[in-house]
Amino acid sequence: MAANGCVFCAIVNGKAEAGIVYSDDDIVAFMDLQPVTPGHLLVIPRRHVVGLSDLDENLGTKIWKVAQRLATALRLSQLRCDGVNLFLADGEAAFQEIFHVHLPVFPRFPGNNFRIDADWRPRDRIELDQTAAAVRNGWNRLIDPSAHTLSS
Amino acid sequence: MAANGCVFCAIVNGKAEAGIVYSDDDIVAFMDLQPVTPGHLLVIPRRHVVGLSDLDENLGTKIWKVAQRLATALRLSQLRCDGVNLFLADGEAAFQEIFHVHLPVFPRFPGNNFRIDADWRPRDRIELDQTAAAVRNGWNRLIDPSAHTLSS
Repeated sequence: MAANGCVFCAIVNGKAEAGIVYSDDDIVAFMDLQPVTPGHLLVIPRRHVVGLSDLDENLGTKIWKVAQRLATALRLSQLRCDGVNLFLADGEAAFQEIFHVHLPVFPRFPGNNFRIDADWRPRDRIELDQTAAAVRNGWNRLIDPSAHTLSS
Repeated sequence: MAANGCVFCAIVNGKAEAGIVYSDDDIVAFMDLQPVTPGHLLVIPRRHVVGLSDLDENLGTKIWKVAQRLATALRLSQLRCDGVNLFLADGEAAFQEIFHVHLPVFPRFPGNNFRIDADWRPRDRIELDQTAAAVRNGWNRLIDPSAHTLSS
């Protein structure tokens, strides 16, 4: 199931060094080499899966569960942790760099260097309702069992 | 279960307007009023829960499952969506602004205005291993059933 050249598969298979913090039959969590803050973790499935759309839902929920526990573990650790971000990047346009799905979990504290920026102006009701309709249309295509493999 | 003054509880209870895209007995998903990009959604539990540490794990996995499906729904919609981010802010230090836990899901595409910045320099093995040990220490406190209510 390992993908050639995938560094996360190499970590899963013990062929690349990593600071492992959690491991079970399906999931591995380890320290990011280039942390946003000390304690920055990546939660990944052992199985090579590129992104959310091809991730089995049950495996996805296992990733989430470990990430949620790690968020609390960070708060209970001696590391600086006044808050926690989970920031998943699905696709190159969303800043995904390693194409083995991973859920980053990192601690935050006043004075850390993490910044986000966007055009956050409020949108009007008409625009929001049109956008909601477009998303529901995508959702309806999703739950058509003839078109998708996701279980209900 | 609604918290006084919580705008997300008001949306759940139909007392504030929102572009709802998904709703079930536990979860509601709706359009963010100030989207990073068109299609920016928030997935929340109906129940008022502040953050990850007080979120029941089963309810957490329901939030995740809806978010994962919405990520695919965005890709299947007519909205611009070449990638998707999930960006959960847990605590004020992590940019949480509404203290009712929510998992944002937003589409990304080349030329969008979303930016992140951090001090991403690689850390050495000793530092990473020390940090991993600190996280494992937090984790060990987490799974002590006498100290925590999370189920195994």
